[in-house]
Amino acid sequence: LVPRFANFRSTVFAEMTALANRTGALNLGQGFPDSDGPPELLAAAAEAVLAGHNQYPPLPGLPALRTAIAEQRLADYGTRYDPDTEILVTTGATEAIAAAIAALVPEGDEVLVFEPFYDSYGAAIALAGARRRTVALRPDGGRFTFDPDELAAAVTPRTRVLLVNTPHNPTGTVLSAAELATIAEVCLRHDLIAIADEVYEHLTFDGVRHVPLASLPGMAERTLTISSAGKTFNATGWKVGWVCGPERMVAAVRTVKQYLTFAGGTPFQHAVAAVLPRRHGWVETLRSTLSAARDALRDELTGAGWQCFSCQGTYFLQADARSVGYADGAELCRDLATEAGVVAIPSSAFYADPAAGRALVRFAFCKSPAVIATAAGRLARFA
Amino acid sequence: LVPRFANFRSTVFAEMTALANRTGALNLGQGFPDSDGPPELLAAAAEAVLAGHNQYPPLPGLPALRTAIAEQRLADYGTRYDPDTEILVTTGATEAIAAAIAALVPEGDEVLVFEPFYDSYGAAIALAGARRRTVALRPDGGRFTFDPDELAAAVTPRTRVLLVNTPHNPTGTVLSAAELATIAEVCLRHDLIAIADEVYEHLTFDGVRHVPLASLPGMAERTLTISSAGKTFNATGWKVGWVCGPERMVAAVRTVKQYLTFAGGTPFQHAVAAVLPRRHGWVETLRSTLSAARDALRDELTGAGWQCFSCQGTYFLQADARSVGYADGAELCRDLATEAGVVAIPSSAFYADPAAGRALVRFAFCKSPAVIATAAGRLARFA
Ligand SMILES: CSCCC(=O)C(=O)O
Ligand SMILES: CSCCC(=O)C(=O)O
Repeated sequence: LVPRFANFRSTVFAEMTALANRTGALNLGQGFPDSDGPPELLAAAAEAVLAGHNQYPPLPGLPALRTAIAEQRLADYGTRYDPDTEILVTTGATEAIAAAIAALVPEGDEVLVFEPFYDSYGAAIALAGARRRTVALRPDGGRFTFDPDELAAAVTPRTRVLLVNTPHNPTGTVLSAAELATIAEVCLRHDLIAIADEVYEHLTFDGVRHVPLASLPGMAERTLTISSAGKTFNATGWKVGWVCGPERMVAAVRTVKQYLTFAGGTPFQHAVAAVLPRRHGWVETLRSTLSAARDALRDELTGAGWQCFSCQGTYFLQADARSVGYADGAELCRDLATEAGVVAIPSSAFYADPAAGRALVRFAFCKSPAVIATAAGRLARFA
Repeated sequence: LVPRFANFRSTVFAEMTALANRTGALNLGQGFPDSDGPPELLAAAAEAVLAGHNQYPPLPGLPALRTAIAEQRLADYGTRYDPDTEILVTTGATEAIAAAIAALVPEGDEVLVFEPFYDSYGAAIALAGARRRTVALRPDGGRFTFDPDELAAAVTPRTRVLLVNTPHNPTGTVLSAAELATIAEVCLRHDLIAIADEVYEHLTFDGVRHVPLASLPGMAERTLTISSAGKTFNATGWKVGWVCGPERMVAAVRTVKQYLTFAGGTPFQHAVAAVLPRRHGWVETLRSTLSAARDALRDELTGAGWQCFSCQGTYFLQADARSVGYADGAELCRDLATEAGVVAIPSSAFYADPAAGRALVRFAFCKSPAVIATAAGRLARFA
């Protein structure tokens, strides 16, 4: 393995799922739902396979899917994209992020990212030969947010891209319009490109609504927005994601993307194209199912003495290991797997400096009510 | 777009397919079949979708698929791989190549590749920050091969990887045991890693049989073998590929691969796992269908004055543009698209120095007998 990947050996998600499978523990680690998406989505995919949609799709993605994405963004957020030139279908959001950073950040330049951050960001920055700088998200009244002065101070003359994730994994923060305005202001002042990973765009709770960074004044022309069908439609194994943004930026991403995987998932693209325009009922149900799961988990944990952080969206609830007597979340996760029969993720995996996230653990609540109830009971007893 | 991708803007395959779609010309450009794989493959994929196999597969791929791959390689070639540690499922061969080069070649080191070469190789080498050196394949009695002295002379102290493709796209050469022995000898003498792209392993004609580079003495411990279901089962839009090799090398590829796309194609992995063990009848039929298509195209072209090169395998037949009065294959391809209604690929796209392949064009014959007959007739009249 070449030196630049030396620090990225194995993602914690695959490790923890393997641990759950080995031990039979309930898997609140890796973020994937334990039930599938809308029946019409599955039927459409099966039909597309049998109808003979099994060869390469066009490199930018099926036109029908790109049109559906453009219509969704216009309807939900009022943002306009030309499906022919401003939308690119990718092999999930992970490929979109890797290709975007490799395409847009020259070797040695900097990517500014909020910490904690999803582990593939660090590897994608390393792949590009770029440098990572971080701005801390810290709890403020239980909800994670950033200090605007720290953000402004972290920009250097080498900063090329600001990488933003909202709704945010693992903290559950949904950035507010005011927070996004602060971010936009920094991007505009320093002429930065924004890459906005918004894969949890629909998974927000308690009436909180996702605001795309690209919808802020002046940001459409400098923002690549990334989303995916995996999280919206409970189809994480399909890897249908997309990038929306200005033509020149999307063309650059396409250049790199075509040499990472070319293009694929043809029948899945057909299925997502068919269902995306009819998403509303499904998305409402998903939101209420997920927020009920979050409530059930949080209430039982809190009742048993766990200190939980605020969660406005995503699949994830964070808790403080110290509230159950552990200084180290990784140690807590080991004991949870073997003694409580529940797999969680040590949030240190989301920190460049693992010491910074040492006390935190993350639970994925995108699981059936029965799994959540059993896991919550075990975690309560463990405390 | 960052400088290192400046020379890789757009793959010729996507461009030529878009041209065919725009003009209604018959598409003998991009290599994809116009009919689907075995019905039981499609049925198994549809069933897997409906049975609920739609979330992330394990990062290395479904165990059943890895086992099926190990059994296939043992049965077909006598090579042994541990499915748990020596096989990794990828998003097609393209991802396998990109991840392998990024994982194994330190910045500034060299990858030696036979020219002409598939265009993603160049981009993958650029992504790794590595350098490319080439060894020419040239026609010798109509069949493309290399000069052993040129191969030996191209190795430098910085050479890390020798990238081999057999059966070879675009020349149609299937490397012989003697040619592979020469390659193995160079790898062993200079302690090189071999990356063997063998996606057309089953598509050989006239009794010629594919020999995996890894099956040569001393090569198993230094060779990563790449193949895919796309070409074997007419499912190019599924992007199910794999890498087989020594544990440490496969682990390195996995490290990079997990951050390019994580893991996906779950229902397709189920389907390929089900059908790979029962491949024999399908593969025999595919071989005879493809060789009949090759014969039909070649015979009609040759009869009309086109000079065609030997084709022992793959989807591709090359011809010399000069035999129909063109010095430049790219110009010929433009005229073929507009005047003959047939899209082909200028082979210069496969050369680092386009001038070297200027006189060649490539036809994909993985098309129905009717398409081949119509296209061949048009090409004959054009000549
Ligand atoms: C690609 S595996 C991880 C899924 C996920 O987004 C998470 O668990 O954070
Ligand atoms: C990934 S598109 C190209 C398909 C192919 O292998 C070819 O046409 O050479």
